[in-house]
Amino acid sequence: ESNVQVYGLIDAGVENVNHAAANGNGVTRVVSGGMNTSRWGFRGSEDLGGGLKAVFQLEGGILLDTGNMDTALFRRQANVGLEGEWGRLVAGRSFTTVYDTVIAYDPMGFAPSYSWATSGPATGPSKYGFTTGFDNLIKYSGSTGNLKYGATIGLGEQTTGAADSRKVAGNVAYSANGLGVMATWERINGNVVPATGNRDENTVWHVGASYETGPWKLWGVVRDFKTVAGKAATPDVKATTVWGGVAYKPQPNVTLTGAIYRIDVKNVAAGKDADPIMYVARYRYALSKRTDLYVATAYAKAKNGQLTGLSRDDAGFDTSQRGVIGGIQHRF
Amino acid sequence: ESNVQVYGLIDAGVENVNHAAANGNGVTRVVSGGMNTSRWGFRGSEDLGGGLKAVFQLEGGILLDTGNMDTALFRRQANVGLEGEWGRLVAGRSFTTVYDTVIAYDPMGFAPSYSWATSGPATGPSKYGFTTGFDNLIKYSGSTGNLKYGATIGLGEQTTGAADSRKVAGNVAYSANGLGVMATWERINGNVVPATGNRDENTVWHVGASYETGPWKLWGVVRDFKTVAGKAATPDVKATTVWGGVAYKPQPNVTLTGAIYRIDVKNVAAGKDADPIMYVARYRYALSKRTDLYVATAYAKAKNGQLTGLSRDDAGFDTSQRGVIGGIQHRF
Amino acid sequence: ESNVQVYGLIDAGVENVNHAAANGNGVTRVVSGGMNTSRWGFRGSEDLGGGLKAVFQLEGGILLDTGNMDTALFRRQANVGLEGEWGRLVAGRSFTTVYDTVIAYDPMGFAPSYSWATSGPATGPSKYGFTTGFDNLIKYSGSTGNLKYGATIGLGEQTTGAADSRKVAGNVAYSANGLGVMATWERINGNVVPATGNRDENTVWHVGASYETGPWKLWGVVRDFKTVAGKAATPDVKATTVWGGVAYKPQPNVTLTGAIYRIDVKNVAAGKDADPIMYVARYRYALSKRTDLYVATAYAKAKNGQLTGLSRDDAGFDTSQRGVIGGIQHRF
Repeated sequence: ESNVQVYGLIDAGVENVNHAAANGNGVTRVVSGGMNTSRWGFRGSEDLGGGLKAVFQLEGGILLDTGNMDTALFRRQANVGLEGEWGRLVAGRSFTTVYDTVIAYDPMGFAPSYSWATSGPATGPSKYGFTTGFDNLIKYSGSTGNLKYGATIGLGEQTTGAADSRKVAGNVAYSANGLGVMATWERINGNVVPATGNRDENTVWHVGASYETGPWKLWGVVRDFKTVAGKAATPDVKATTVWGGVAYKPQPNVTLTGAIYRIDVKNVAAGKDADPIMYVARYRYALSKRTDLYVATAYAKAKNGQLTGLSRDDAGFDTSQRGVIGGIQHRF
Repeated sequence: ESNVQVYGLIDAGVENVNHAAANGNGVTRVVSGGMNTSRWGFRGSEDLGGGLKAVFQLEGGILLDTGNMDTALFRRQANVGLEGEWGRLVAGRSFTTVYDTVIAYDPMGFAPSYSWATSGPATGPSKYGFTTGFDNLIKYSGSTGNLKYGATIGLGEQTTGAADSRKVAGNVAYSANGLGVMATWERINGNVVPATGNRDENTVWHVGASYETGPWKLWGVVRDFKTVAGKAATPDVKATTVWGGVAYKPQPNVTLTGAIYRIDVKNVAAGKDADPIMYVARYRYALSKRTDLYVATAYAKAKNGQLTGLSRDDAGFDTSQRGVIGGIQHRF
Repeated sequence: ESNVQVYGLIDAGVENVNHAAANGNGVTRVVSGGMNTSRWGFRGSEDLGGGLKAVFQLEGGILLDTGNMDTALFRRQANVGLEGEWGRLVAGRSFTTVYDTVIAYDPMGFAPSYSWATSGPATGPSKYGFTTGFDNLIKYSGSTGNLKYGATIGLGEQTTGAADSRKVAGNVAYSANGLGVMATWERINGNVVPATGNRDENTVWHVGASYETGPWKLWGVVRDFKTVAGKAATPDVKATTVWGGVAYKPQPNVTLTGAIYRIDVKNVAAGKDADPIMYVARYRYALSKRTDLYVATAYAKAKNGQLTGLSRDDAGFDTSQRGVIGGIQHRF
């Protein structure tokens, strides 16, 4: 009776970075998910007739260096719904439709080593990134010809009002003749602050384009990030992130990727503007359709003596950091 | 070499309830498991010859709105044993044989939205329910013709004596010609209280009947709940729960269910007697053998200005609560 | 596209031990993994051509009496790598190659009930055991004819120097004509203690032999354990563990096993030398290739009025302990 598919992606590498602690030293470490987050899961669908399908997915991240789960058991995907010619509608926990859109416009495909497309480095007052998944989610994805569109809502589930803690995201993308363009928008609400009657409002939008011709592919994206505080006299958190990159396939099983990510930090005190930039290069060699070897290297630096780092998760300890990683990824 | 089956049940809905907080307001939320708890697992058996089989099961609950596991990884089922003509004997963690019996006599099938058959609402001094699963379990299930019977023990594993923290449950059920009857009994021990030499003793019994004819099915059950405290001068906790219901299938893929649950709370101070009652109605539409859509609504109220709520897990904030949920369930 | 295998081992038993608490009493309990730790997982490989394979494994332990995971989700195995005629190289989390070697030289196969081959009892100043698995692991296993060898490193990932918290292990084994011999060595580092410039260094080696002829198999192993403290004036922790055993198969589906484990504790105060010894006997009856029944019994005692116990995990409460367990194990 079962048509469930067991699947996963297992990615491990060895990374060396400098400036890994306040003592100024570097470190060499085993890393889970250098190119993509290690994961495992179940997915399936059932044909209900008339072009309708029931669909479900359960997927969790794995920290391969310790064997721990990456936060919750099925935090990447835990949803069920229906799919037809009209699109796909699921409820539960999932990535947003904005995530599904933006990942295709990152030359590095959100690689933990190295990309600032989901967020900037975990250094400074904010990561200036976007919200990749929602709890309490209802998600619609559809397409009409070359046009794709989607909308995601994460219910706030607050008894103080439906808008408190509510998260919404929407997106459109168009592709034809090797050209792709997309635009996304999202709004993440906090709860009302009694003293002001206002709530934290985080608004992020992206616009991006890509172009593919022969063995070449090019990308360029702009993200605008703004958080307006519900508390009085709390300054807005603002930044504009720009990235661009190129991938070249000199032969079918080799991909060379270069990318630059730059964050223009705004609304901070004069002379405290980190404006970090990261340069990335990656060599990817496919041993098969399901197994790759890769080497990636990156260099990040900040202005004005501010700290920065390569990582979206670990804070940096110096005004620059360089890293190199070699690894293997297998998909099943 | 492997004959394991991967299986699951994924159920998500959107629910609106009133009186969801002390502020009196309602809330709309994404709910995991409106009709049945979302779950995933592995099960299998091996033919050992001579009518004997080795059997095992691993099953865990999923909170679909966040992707978290529902308490322990395989808390629903984690057991291994043997099955033959003489019955089935397993050890580990599982539901009790009483659970396996009573679920068939609940018109709502223990639906989180909405049934008080496993326990009453999480409001007031007790839920007046029964213990659905045991740790440290040994479980026997058997049948002789139309008669089914079972016994379950959860070892207390206390060095102060085998009876401390011991849990035992037993049951019989008979069905023929559309008529079913059952009776169950269970005793959940605490540890001896040194001052009195007594221990908390919780005793729960059920008797129930069901009748099925054509598109109709009817149920009626009585549960008696009593906890005698091991401490001196601590009053007994007592209640009698009664439920009844009807299911009607106007066509093969539609089931209409109505149910009423009422708890007669005993041994509380005069005028503090909540005696909550819940009325439930559900429409279930089968898209296939493995996928259903459903809408359910319920209303609960308490007497004497006491608080109550629909939920077995979340305390109520008013003397009544109404809820409505629409959802989808897929089994694989 | 998927060639993943779902597999597991589910083992449950009922055990009685005496001296289970400070009150002197015994206890009867449901035990997960009497003969081997209960586990579940996924493994697979992909043929990459030219004798090369991509390999991965995810495996976690299960506490069957409660349904909980045994520490981290996939703490037993979470790794990916390559395998060829040159051997197998994986990165992530795994057992060490020393573990893979020593397990074949324990008559009880590291059975939780009962073996002191991974470590001695959890009673006294140390278990005097070895480190079965490493985080941040890189593991190489190879063979040349009848010779097997391996090396495992667990990166320390400290910015204070590559040797801080580093773990390394290596091993060789040779087998021919029913005779097997092995030797292993491992070094587990702590971090540098600033006051002395030294770090804790734990060094463990094993040498062992086995001989198989007809229905008989014999084993003998010596383990030397030594921890030199990084702090000043802290005495070394030292012990030599010796074990030996015999297995006899009177018929193909029955295995009788006897084993003795003895720990010679060194470098403790005069008259405080526990030197515990454990005697074990097991009857194992195979219902099939994948399902066994077993009964095991053991007795442990210590010298000089010191406490000891059978368990590697639970501390003992008396100078001796006896236990008996009966259980079932199924593999899928």
